[in-house]
Amino acid sequence: MKQKRFFLSEQEIPNKWYNIQVDMPNKPEPMLDPVTRKPVTVDDLSQIFCRECSKQELNFTDRWIEIPEEVQEMYKFYRSTPLVRAYGLEKALGTKSHIYFKNESVSPVGSHKLNSALAQAWYCKNEGITNVTTETGAGQWGTALSYAAQLFGMNAAVYQVKVSYEQKPYRRSMMQVFGAQVTPSPSMSTRAGKNILTNDPNNMGSLGTAISEAVELARMTPEKCKYTLGSTMSHVSLHQTVIGLEAEKQMEMAGEYPDEIIACFGGGSNFSGIAFPFMRHNFSGKTNTLFFAAEPTSCPKITRGIMAYDYGDVAGYTPLIKMYTLGHNFMPANIHAGGLRYHGAGSVVSQLAADGFMKGIDINQIEAFDAGTLFARTEGIVPAPESCHAIAATIQRAKHWDEAGESKVLLFNLTGHGLIDMASYDQYLQGNLVNYSISQQDIDNFTKDL
Amino acid sequence: MKQKRFFLSEQEIPNKWYNIQVDMPNKPEPMLDPVTRKPVTVDDLSQIFCRECSKQELNFTDRWIEIPEEVQEMYKFYRSTPLVRAYGLEKALGTKSHIYFKNESVSPVGSHKLNSALAQAWYCKNEGITNVTTETGAGQWGTALSYAAQLFGMNAAVYQVKVSYEQKPYRRSMMQVFGAQVTPSPSMSTRAGKNILTNDPNNMGSLGTAISEAVELARMTPEKCKYTLGSTMSHVSLHQTVIGLEAEKQMEMAGEYPDEIIACFGGGSNFSGIAFPFMRHNFSGKTNTLFFAAEPTSCPKITRGIMAYDYGDVAGYTPLIKMYTLGHNFMPANIHAGGLRYHGAGSVVSQLAADGFMKGIDINQIEAFDAGTLFARTEGIVPAPESCHAIAATIQRAKHWDEAGESKVLLFNLTGHGLIDMASYDQYLQGNLVNYSISQQDIDNFTKDL
Repeated sequence: MKQKRFFLSEQEIPNKWYNIQVDMPNKPEPMLDPVTRKPVTVDDLSQIFCRECSKQELNFTDRWIEIPEEVQEMYKFYRSTPLVRAYGLEKALGTKSHIYFKNESVSPVGSHKLNSALAQAWYCKNEGITNVTTETGAGQWGTALSYAAQLFGMNAAVYQVKVSYEQKPYRRSMMQVFGAQVTPSPSMSTRAGKNILTNDPNNMGSLGTAISEAVELARMTPEKCKYTLGSTMSHVSLHQTVIGLEAEKQMEMAGEYPDEIIACFGGGSNFSGIAFPFMRHNFSGKTNTLFFAAEPTSCPKITRGIMAYDYGDVAGYTPLIKMYTLGHNFMPANIHAGGLRYHGAGSVVSQLAADGFMKGIDINQIEAFDAGTLFARTEGIVPAPESCHAIAATIQRAKHWDEAGESKVLLFNLTGHGLIDMASYDQYLQGNLVNYSISQQDIDNFTKDL
Repeated sequence: MKQKRFFLSEQEIPNKWYNIQVDMPNKPEPMLDPVTRKPVTVDDLSQIFCRECSKQELNFTDRWIEIPEEVQEMYKFYRSTPLVRAYGLEKALGTKSHIYFKNESVSPVGSHKLNSALAQAWYCKNEGITNVTTETGAGQWGTALSYAAQLFGMNAAVYQVKVSYEQKPYRRSMMQVFGAQVTPSPSMSTRAGKNILTNDPNNMGSLGTAISEAVELARMTPEKCKYTLGSTMSHVSLHQTVIGLEAEKQMEMAGEYPDEIIACFGGGSNFSGIAFPFMRHNFSGKTNTLFFAAEPTSCPKITRGIMAYDYGDVAGYTPLIKMYTLGHNFMPANIHAGGLRYHGAGSVVSQLAADGFMKGIDINQIEAFDAGTLFARTEGIVPAPESCHAIAATIQRAKHWDEAGESKVLLFNLTGHGLIDMASYDQYLQGNLVNYSISQQDIDNFTKDL
């Protein structure tokens, strides 16, 4: 019998994260202070983020960063996550390629987000912070932070994008089980939220808006409360590299090396996590792996956005970031993959895309659920709507190589399970889902002032 | 750092199940045909169940039964499941005891039920069956069968207890994602269902009723369609022994042996699964492990039922089984632990209870959710309401030993996660849950004709 799943022993779990900022050939443009327009410093970032994360964000010198022992201890709750050979999916596709996935859905909170939440919560705790706040889309990040805060004895306040809050009520319950306070965003609890609701009382929110609210809350009492972010930033990508570092060892156990690595793309955290450790071998010329970011057709910043300085949020509280963006006022369609409804791509990933180290594949909503349902029926795991995009892109790639008569080794990241999102599968099974795209005119419009 | 989780390699996953019927000192009384009242034969059982399961049911001679290679292959999708040291829970309790749990929630369908569903589906397939049917309470068994049927290319029809169907809509969606046809029970699609609805149009169903409906459906076309059961029967317990066989090896890796083993108890499948492989060492006098079945206070058949011949279902279609029962007409309160709402305990487990090898602990609904929430906050896994009972009983035992000034090794089975049941946690967090108990008069009443 062929081996299906590959695990590392607890001793083999990485004890360092990989900092790609040291190795990437062209560094990202500096983030700029939204008021002074000068490059931000660690001190600037520390107004919002905890100090250690602020330092990691601007660290271009240390290739390997030690994972705090307390975080390593917590990683053992669910790591190593399995690397799985998708024999069932391969068979259903009739593909000659070998498909592997890294199953991050086995984390207690159901997604890869915990990898960074544990780190951020621990650093906050270590710096004497008592309260953490954040935004969440689909709820995966909010759940992860709620649990991590609970573990380290802190309070968590989560702003959940209103459309997700309503589509996915179980997510709210889960955050509350972990002890968090959850508020639908836009809310009346912040100036940013109030402004939006005044203009548009039925506004269903976006990640950009929820970020503004959380940042505003953190700024009210900066000595006690810090903002945490689940994606986009370099320090978040750093923490997620534990995924790819594990996968590298596990692929070795499987006796193969990936020709292509595919991940869904919202702000870039899971993509970075699985891709960066492998990408470093491309930098050194050792390998020539292809990297694909699977984006929703309705929110295609890598595929169709422009590279420009833009805000990370709607209200303009965050630093200006040079990145692929659809404009910070862009309001994505209400697709079920709430975690992919973000306008920007983060500075590091954007630079890597600009330099040709990765590219985007855009996936329609129905194609994503087609792929997710096939995956559930063949591999037994109901994937999160976000992860469905990675599966759909992987299927595209497998078909591409079959048509070319070639067999490749494909690795994708299964970021999370969809058990909290069954309502979206209901919609799909009932034929009620629609595809959304975005016109060039809309893109031009949202990006014209950048 | 101390090791938290213990895994077996794929080579170490058991390739045989343990058949306790060979070793138990007193065999269970024979099951009787509901019409002739004679002991049932393999031929009789094969009217409803597939032939191989019918044989296993009455097998008192083979201690070890080979797991079919195809089923072993599928076990590798999620097995071995982790054995976990609950350091977080121990710390929160301040207990001196060591608490371990076997985490069956990592199965693709979220519970231990898949262990038997894969076996039953494969045997059916192997015998040329094209359709399988079953009942489900909380939905865990129905989901497992739906997925297993899908894997082996069969159709599945699931009768879901109406109260669960309404309380847990995501379960229905999940079964449908796996391709099953799901009907709330009682339904108008069977004679048994119609009879009940005629008398009581608002009847919210029970496992006993749903079983009647599924059995009736299977009997309509016995050559093409077989009934499958997720608990109670000896062949189901047999398949579940993979849990305890793994746990035995994993406890050895941890360097400890359990003094007490605790599992929640509906029909007995997960209890048997974790307990039987360890209990065999009690039979031989090598060990003196204590075994506890954690039951809801509202459905306490082991704790307060009578040992008598009774039907497994409401309509009286199943064989008569000598077991601890609350009477087949007993209608349990609508607690959220739908999988524990069953009136009977199965013949083998009942005999073992009568012989003093195990005992019941009854747990109130609110105590169960208190325990589950503490577990979620300390170990990160939101447990199924059923599993919450095992956690609450484990906490009781840890406190008992702390009061006695002793430290014990406690092992419980975490049967499933509660991510599909977040609505029940909502009720709990809002303070809307109530405890249910049952009066002696009610028990006397429901069991008086047995």
